[in-house]
Amino acid sequence: MPKHALSVTREDDFAQWYQQVISEADLAEESGVRGCMIIRPWGYGIWERIQRLLDDRIKATGHDNCYFPLFIPLSYFEKEAEHVDGFAKEMAVVTHHRLVMQDGKMVPDPEAKLEEPLVVRPTSETVIGAAFSRWIKSWRDLPVLINQWANVVRWEMRTRMFLRTSEFLWQEGHTAHATEEGAREETMHMLEVYRSFAEDCLAMPVVAGEKSENERFPGADATWSIEAMMQDGKALQAGTSHFLGTTFSEAQNIRFQNDEGQFQLAYTTSWGMSTRMVGGMIMVHGDDDGLRVPPRVAPHQIVIVPMLRDQHEDERVLSYCHELRAQLSQLNAINEPVRVLLDTKPVKAATKRWSWVKKGAPIIVEVGARDVAGGNVSVLRRTSLYKDDGKLASEIMERHDFVDRAATMLEEIQQALYDEARSRLDGSIRRGVETFGELEKFFDEGGKYPGWVEVQWSRPTGAALANVVERLKALKLTIRNVPMDAPAADGNCIFTGDKAVERILVARAY
Amino acid sequence: MPKHALSVTREDDFAQWYQQVISEADLAEESGVRGCMIIRPWGYGIWERIQRLLDDRIKATGHDNCYFPLFIPLSYFEKEAEHVDGFAKEMAVVTHHRLVMQDGKMVPDPEAKLEEPLVVRPTSETVIGAAFSRWIKSWRDLPVLINQWANVVRWEMRTRMFLRTSEFLWQEGHTAHATEEGAREETMHMLEVYRSFAEDCLAMPVVAGEKSENERFPGADATWSIEAMMQDGKALQAGTSHFLGTTFSEAQNIRFQNDEGQFQLAYTTSWGMSTRMVGGMIMVHGDDDGLRVPPRVAPHQIVIVPMLRDQHEDERVLSYCHELRAQLSQLNAINEPVRVLLDTKPVKAATKRWSWVKKGAPIIVEVGARDVAGGNVSVLRRTSLYKDDGKLASEIMERHDFVDRAATMLEEIQQALYDEARSRLDGSIRRGVETFGELEKFFDEGGKYPGWVEVQWSRPTGAALANVVERLKALKLTIRNVPMDAPAADGNCIFTGDKAVERILVARAY
Ligand SMILES: [Zn+2]
Ligand SMILES: [Zn+2]
Repeated sequence: MPKHALSVTREDDFAQWYQQVISEADLAEESGVRGCMIIRPWGYGIWERIQRLLDDRIKATGHDNCYFPLFIPLSYFEKEAEHVDGFAKEMAVVTHHRLVMQDGKMVPDPEAKLEEPLVVRPTSETVIGAAFSRWIKSWRDLPVLINQWANVVRWEMRTRMFLRTSEFLWQEGHTAHATEEGAREETMHMLEVYRSFAEDCLAMPVVAGEKSENERFPGADATWSIEAMMQDGKALQAGTSHFLGTTFSEAQNIRFQNDEGQFQLAYTTSWGMSTRMVGGMIMVHGDDDGLRVPPRVAPHQIVIVPMLRDQHEDERVLSYCHELRAQLSQLNAINEPVRVLLDTKPVKAATKRWSWVKKGAPIIVEVGARDVAGGNVSVLRRTSLYKDDGKLASEIMERHDFVDRAATMLEEIQQALYDEARSRLDGSIRRGVETFGELEKFFDEGGKYPGWVEVQWSRPTGAALANVVERLKALKLTIRNVPMDAPAADGNCIFTGDKAVERILVARAY
Repeated sequence: MPKHALSVTREDDFAQWYQQVISEADLAEESGVRGCMIIRPWGYGIWERIQRLLDDRIKATGHDNCYFPLFIPLSYFEKEAEHVDGFAKEMAVVTHHRLVMQDGKMVPDPEAKLEEPLVVRPTSETVIGAAFSRWIKSWRDLPVLINQWANVVRWEMRTRMFLRTSEFLWQEGHTAHATEEGAREETMHMLEVYRSFAEDCLAMPVVAGEKSENERFPGADATWSIEAMMQDGKALQAGTSHFLGTTFSEAQNIRFQNDEGQFQLAYTTSWGMSTRMVGGMIMVHGDDDGLRVPPRVAPHQIVIVPMLRDQHEDERVLSYCHELRAQLSQLNAINEPVRVLLDTKPVKAATKRWSWVKKGAPIIVEVGARDVAGGNVSVLRRTSLYKDDGKLASEIMERHDFVDRAATMLEEIQQALYDEARSRLDGSIRRGVETFGELEKFFDEGGKYPGWVEVQWSRPTGAALANVVERLKALKLTIRNVPMDAPAADGNCIFTGDKAVERILVARAY
């Protein structure tokens, strides 16, 4: 049994393991500012990779990036009651625009109180809707397809790094369309962009589907999500796409003249993905040695660690490493130039190796004097760290062989991470549960969650739905979504006993 | 005389011309939120190009990107008196974290008042300094070289788009070093990154130099800037680099153990460049037909406008345009793949042409049925729009000739914009002004500013400096900087009559 790099295992305490990965992999830390975290270089580098890859996909589908104000006047929210209700409890409010010294202390200057308080954006439907109403005059102006990368604030009482923080980073797409059909297509199209992005880039298999009525975005006609399974069996909502109908168009007066000269309301959508994804990546791919970053989003895909001994040979080792880096940087893997780091920090080689193991660099290459003499390199794949006997599975390869194979190895690692997560997801959804009692029994594992349950239901509304939500809540469970690719219903609702109309996923969620 | 695309010329009313460029080129617009603007796709696309190119340079010099909180507790500012004094008058303050309904109106919930108000960051020295004090323990941890791309807020009473807005976007670099020398080198190094970035990427010649004491960043030991000359003769501070000495290390307790085991304060620096640069670009390169975007920062470098007539030939024209786009996209210009847009929006070709002229796309290619028949394209360079007779200088070229020449043309346009701005800058700095009277006379042009003046001074401090600042202020002038490459002083101070120690630039500034 190998001795692992972290002191807490997933099995022992998943929550503490998660925190340890974040600190040992230098992903993020508490900032000292309530509910806000500092994203450190390795964590931010992963986010930058996510941004770059997702941004390319957003632009490729015709969306333009813009930037809208951080502050939203309170009155903008008052126009849409359901929307403001949804966010009022977690809004940071700016009330003053100046500080002044009072009794030796800086305080908000009473003379500089704002006439109308400003809300720090929790999401931008209202302020972007106001812009849409100015921009859109005729059917010729439609569709309007925009996106912004921004920080948003939703005040949280209990926070958890990357998963629930008062400030977080995200992209929010906002579009307006002449027809309901156009807006619905956009909603589904972006859901598919999220699904393929999560699976192809983050190696994170997900289930795409529609949220139940009670889980809709405040003001939306329909909300769709992708849900990923964490290694503790819980679900993480990893991206959402909302069909907003004409709710925001009515509130913000987004009207256009159609080709027959009549004025009508536009249909809008919005969709977002956030730094939450970094938390999801940790919980999907991490192991007891730390994080494992899928090569497509790894800031450095290959890290070269020279083994120096303060001796004359060091120079030869370093120049060998420089050459190796140059060769590897010429390669392309998964359609991009390979990202290589030669780590020359003044730290012991073994410490560096373990630091990159914990950070999850896909391939770590160690080079010592003996490797140089033999024209070799010692290669460690983050996805297969140990041999059967528990020793490190470091493989001595001829340098040119490694260079020839490196791109393929990165592709294999990307695929291996996906396959592992895919078989976990597929193997952990219990189907065929026909009664609420069976569902209760499945989740009765002493606080552990063996996975998700797919059940049939009659899609109740109103009080009946509230009752379902309550019963699940008592078990700390929620409805995740109605999987798009689930077979049609053919039984009865496990909650109401009525004829079922569709299948839903039930799980404990982050 | 050509009839220009804008209704206001630079000569007639520079300020109004500036606003017109911003609106006609779809760069930005008022948001309805006090002091905050909406950056529209073409403006944001330029900012994204600036980010990409500057970020590459910041990373190439060893800096890592991070992200720090938007909110900073008031107490962090109180630790450094000069710093808080500098920003207290323009701080947005968050005082509540929830809204509640009161008499039918949403108001900040009195029950959700923060114990300690949070400031929306005007700059991040304090919160990053606090992190540095946790991160830095030993000389081995130094230097720490980080950067963040973020929004910041400085409440402004009188705003002007891109130049002075309450919220703006920027990057802020923050570094800590073991020695004063190391920190000073970093300060100068980043100043040089800014200088070369402005000149090479934005085609914006600048003067790099140290700011006078009264213009230093609050808390800095020394502030350096690059200053660019606008077409109305005013100056724009386009980037600053600060040597902070140990001021923030003392306030935030950033100490390390040196290699002899003693504890000492680290030396820190900070440096920033913002969306202001977009405003500077407009005022340096714009003309009476709108903006001219330097190819390196143009979101689309070549725009193809098909001339369609709702006829059978349209299909042939479009497929010809698609082929042309594909060919051009294969090219490299100035070390990057050429960025080409085929504009197929349902708008008249002439309208599109003028819209791209106003937006400042470097090359506009029009393709009609006759061009297709002859294997030609009609090429318009944004830097030479008109012939001597005032007609459009659209040049019919063989398509393959144009494809062969396109990359070179882009390089020529980049260079032409730089040369034009360079000769304006060089020709508009008056040297050899030896008395305050001469300086007054130079600027006595009925509200127009013929350029800048370089004078010698004795670098007074205290009341004597305040007096100089006052005298200049009466003429609406300020000291811009002490140009690094100016010859040594050899005369007397035009303010005090004392022996001069250096030369300074004096100008009206934005
Ligand atoms: Zn565009
Ligand atoms: Zn790095």
